[in-house]
Amino acid sequence: MGEFDLIARYFKRPARQAVLGVGDDCALLAPAPGMHIAISSDMLVEGRHFFADVDPEALGHKALAVNLSDLAACGAKPLAFTLALALPRVDEAWLAGFSWGLLALADAHGCELIGGDTTAGPLNICITVFGEVPQGQALLRSGAQVGDDIYVSGTLGDARLALQALQGHITLPTEVLASARQRLERPSPRVALGQALRGMATSAIDVSDGLLGDLGHVLQASGVGACINTTTTTNLIANSACFTMAYGPFDLKMAQQCTLAGGDDYELAFTAPPHHRQAVAAAAQASATTVTRIGTIEATPGLRLVDADGQPVQASFASFDHFAKP
Amino acid sequence: MGEFDLIARYFKRPARQAVLGVGDDCALLAPAPGMHIAISSDMLVEGRHFFADVDPEALGHKALAVNLSDLAACGAKPLAFTLALALPRVDEAWLAGFSWGLLALADAHGCELIGGDTTAGPLNICITVFGEVPQGQALLRSGAQVGDDIYVSGTLGDARLALQALQGHITLPTEVLASARQRLERPSPRVALGQALRGMATSAIDVSDGLLGDLGHVLQASGVGACINTTTTTNLIANSACFTMAYGPFDLKMAQQCTLAGGDDYELAFTAPPHHRQAVAAAAQASATTVTRIGTIEATPGLRLVDADGQPVQASFASFDHFAKP
Repeated sequence: MGEFDLIARYFKRPARQAVLGVGDDCALLAPAPGMHIAISSDMLVEGRHFFADVDPEALGHKALAVNLSDLAACGAKPLAFTLALALPRVDEAWLAGFSWGLLALADAHGCELIGGDTTAGPLNICITVFGEVPQGQALLRSGAQVGDDIYVSGTLGDARLALQALQGHITLPTEVLASARQRLERPSPRVALGQALRGMATSAIDVSDGLLGDLGHVLQASGVGACINTTTTTNLIANSACFTMAYGPFDLKMAQQCTLAGGDDYELAFTAPPHHRQAVAAAAQASATTVTRIGTIEATPGLRLVDADGQPVQASFASFDHFAKP
Repeated sequence: MGEFDLIARYFKRPARQAVLGVGDDCALLAPAPGMHIAISSDMLVEGRHFFADVDPEALGHKALAVNLSDLAACGAKPLAFTLALALPRVDEAWLAGFSWGLLALADAHGCELIGGDTTAGPLNICITVFGEVPQGQALLRSGAQVGDDIYVSGTLGDARLALQALQGHITLPTEVLASARQRLERPSPRVALGQALRGMATSAIDVSDGLLGDLGHVLQASGVGACINTTTTTNLIANSACFTMAYGPFDLKMAQQCTLAGGDDYELAFTAPPHHRQAVAAAAQASATTVTRIGTIEATPGLRLVDADGQPVQASFASFDHFAKP
């Protein structure tokens, strides 16, 4: 099968929202009046972002999910995406699974594949995603204000535990691993929550490299500091069967590691002023996503960890860096 | 150097046209009223699109040039681009050269780097480019009409000759190879010509895989056929010192191969009705690009080659396909 047949068979579908989709030199988007176009691009590499033997359907899902998560963090509504794909060979079973997982998630979010590129090469998946957000309403990293509450959506840490299990560092019962793998391999981008937070959240970021590291970007961009209640964040893993099986319910240090520096969570961390607490709760309910208040933005730069009694917690966690020496 | 330092040092510059550039979850574009956004994505892989030892500055130039060429073929004005980069290691000399070549071409076209991704992995460069084109004025592959003239910009074949020389199939004097290498490694996307052809060209495509193969996409999308004068196309290589040195001035078969199926030319092939001949000539002059009339669109499907006397030319050329067996 040649390059053009491959595209036609697995990736070409009629354009719907887009003016022009797959098959010309460019795709064409017609932005609605008053809307800004939010754009994000993520590249996934075999051996670094996924294992060589990952289920291709899950990989198709995740490749788009991590991009949708960036749109969510911006409060943008997904519109469309491009896919550039380097493949070591044409493996039709792999392509069928990958495109199925990819397009199922795309359909669930009304996000249309409008173009891209395919080439031979070491497996590499690069997706660029486009969303729309009303002018002036995008959630940025730079808007956190002193006194704001800090929230995180969903739960944290299970993706990291699944990774540890797949790497052979911990052992988990089959069903428990299967459920944690869902968090690692099929993350749910918080797209509805992101849009619901427009006008109330002052800043937002998606948690991909670990909560503390990602929150650090918000603090830096906003020129503020923060105090985080680790008793609360640790509770975000308390109901994880995975965690209990691997470490028992009382390994506080490991619970902190997984929740504060886990990585691959694809939850949203965001800030909002205290007078919006009810509105935030309503936004969470409307988007069927739990949110937990985990701390406060402060004027003093830096990130301070305290327990439920306000006592300082000593901890040091490395955030994920693709070029850090192991 | 970590991922975020790398981005800050080599790729982060203040946003200019874009509402928001590098450094948040998404970049933001504010489309002008009445404009469509043209989008194209190309992925370049080491060993397939470029040699491992290519000058990184030339590679930076080419990675963006091939994308700008797609905008040109659409008649779009470049606005911005994202860059996703997988790097086997952090090599600062390489990054300095690459980013210099990339951003110099970007500046020349007022095309702003607004975001992207960096990761460790086998060298892979994925650029997604954004342009604007007035609603309804994009040049598509599907608009060619029976009776239209067929044109191609610039010259054809030198990039292919440079590739043959670099692969050791032919030998060229140093200065001659240097000039052909410019065509292979630093193509000039016909951005001004593409925009100048709005309203007169009925279809357009950029010539990246070889003239006949790319023209075939136009014929298929437009549901038409074409007759090409190979005496005229062969003349597009007649002044090539490269060609004369490699094959002598009279190797008609090789001249046809290089011009009709060379690849990597990044010229525009386009169609326009005969009553626009003067306007096309004026557009070419205004954009300082030569254009040559090479044939006619016909109702009968397929692509026919004739010589200056209208006699059929027998030839068969394979267009470039990334997954074709060699």
